Amino acid sequence: MQLWCTENQSDSLGLTARVKETLFTGRSEFQDVAIVDTYQFGRMLVLDGVFQTSVVEEFIYHEMIAHVPLYTHPNPQQVLVIGGGDGGTIREVVRHDSVKVAEMVEIDGMVVDACKKYLPETSIALNENNPKVRLKIGDGIKHMKEAENKYDVIIVDCSDPIGPGEGLFTHAFYQDVFKALKPDGLFVQQTESPFYHQELIQRLTKDIASLFPITKLYLASIPIYPGGLHCFTIGSKQYDPSTGETGKRPQLKTRYYHADLHKSCFVLPNFIRELLK
Amino acid sequence: MQLWCTENQSDSLGLTARVKETLFTGRSEFQDVAIVDTYQFGRMLVLDGVFQTSVVEEFIYHEMIAHVPLYTHPNPQQVLVIGGGDGGTIREVVRHDSVKVAEMVEIDGMVVDACKKYLPETSIALNENNPKVRLKIGDGIKHMKEAENKYDVIIVDCSDPIGPGEGLFTHAFYQDVFKALKPDGLFVQQTESPFYHQELIQRLTKDIASLFPITKLYLASIPIYPGGLHCFTIGSKQYDPSTGETGKRPQLKTRYYHADLHKSCFVLPNFIRELLK
Repeated sequence: MQLWCTENQSDSLGLTARVKETLFTGRSEFQDVAIVDTYQFGRMLVLDGVFQTSVVEEFIYHEMIAHVPLYTHPNPQQVLVIGGGDGGTIREVVRHDSVKVAEMVEIDGMVVDACKKYLPETSIALNENNPKVRLKIGDGIKHMKEAENKYDVIIVDCSDPIGPGEGLFTHAFYQDVFKALKPDGLFVQQTESPFYHQELIQRLTKDIASLFPITKLYLASIPIYPGGLHCFTIGSKQYDPSTGETGKRPQLKTRYYHADLHKSCFVLPNFIRELLK
Repeated sequence: MQLWCTENQSDSLGLTARVKETLFTGRSEFQDVAIVDTYQFGRMLVLDGVFQTSVVEEFIYHEMIAHVPLYTHPNPQQVLVIGGGDGGTIREVVRHDSVKVAEMVEIDGMVVDACKKYLPETSIALNENNPKVRLKIGDGIKHMKEAENKYDVIIVDCSDPIGPGEGLFTHAFYQDVFKALKPDGLFVQQTESPFYHQELIQRLTKDIASLFPITKLYLASIPIYPGGLHCFTIGSKQYDPSTGETGKRPQLKTRYYHADLHKSCFVLPNFIRELLK
């Protein structure tokens, strides 16, 4: 018998991966949580049937959501991650010497526990009692309402805008993000596929641009996500991320990100440029 | 009943698209040929079960395989396409005013006939008796052996290196390509996925670099191909494609390609840079 795990990327498209072993399944207060070991991608986190991250290619998403905003800010010290329960984003954040405190607010403790147990390479910064890391299991929307003038960089590492992630794709949330950032702060959010979520991207780009003087979209190639191409959107109060790294900070060893790619990932194909007009 | 067409992208990964209607199936001398109408991608050409091109996203592949080499050459007049039976590549080639003759050698007449009938937007340059187009149904390898000092640009628009495309991924073929090009000529070939075909990419990069003074790989995001990210490799006798367009030729109206992207598509993630070392 062969076992396959299929993500319905839309109602007419699926990506299916052959499974060696199902390591964990559970139903949390918020969603179905599963960790499967696949032949193609190794161990993979699946939430409500949607492929989230896998050991083989997680470096792409986590490097790109962390290093593009962090190298844009000349001296990021206070960083907040909303979501990111697998720990991969905060693992990359704490590699920056400038970072003093990396807070993380994840709504679903079951995701954190499952990743700490089954994805140890990804969740290492949550396991090792890293002195910079402050993990809180709680509601990111509520946390953001209460924060003011506190963060240099906020990273919204959320799942799709259906289910627990829904409230993170709203104008009201972006207002709270703006308020929580320092006067030269910036934030980034994963913003889905430029092929399959064009209306969402247009709406949230408009919402972010109504608040932030600088709004930019960049791209990364992520094979387990629909279409293989994924958007990230930055709202920034002062620094333009598309002009590349600021200052002369040491280059971290990375497998996807580098200083030239920091600039080129903002060079968008014409059909995406049109989308953002 | 729902019909789904599934490509086995590897023995442990599949992409599956829901089908409205099967428009054509046939068995040629070389391969299984099918055209299906899908909900996600519209009409799609499938050869030996592998998704080749679809009306929704064909512009990406065809613009990127044609315009990057053509805008690299300052005055491409004689162009050859090997393969490309759907006609999309030659459609983009003949848009360049400088091009006087665009030859195309496709091995499988059934592919051409099916695309002329069912993919009219893609195959338009084959249908409209374009005076620049010279279509030959025949063996591209044999054609290349016989050509000498003839072409400014050669585009190898082939299927996977299994089946009829196999002989197009060999050192012997690249020697013939070198001979068929003029002293300042260049060629491009689609060279598969940087996630799933790393050994192939390493081997052919080495083969091409052993013949051509300039060898460069560039990327495009193609949602129907494995991993959603696809490689193209250029072997060039004189012009460096990664420095961008030459001269000041008029910019064609395109949906993916543009002059800035011509440069940024050569900026490779670190894991691909490592692969090519």
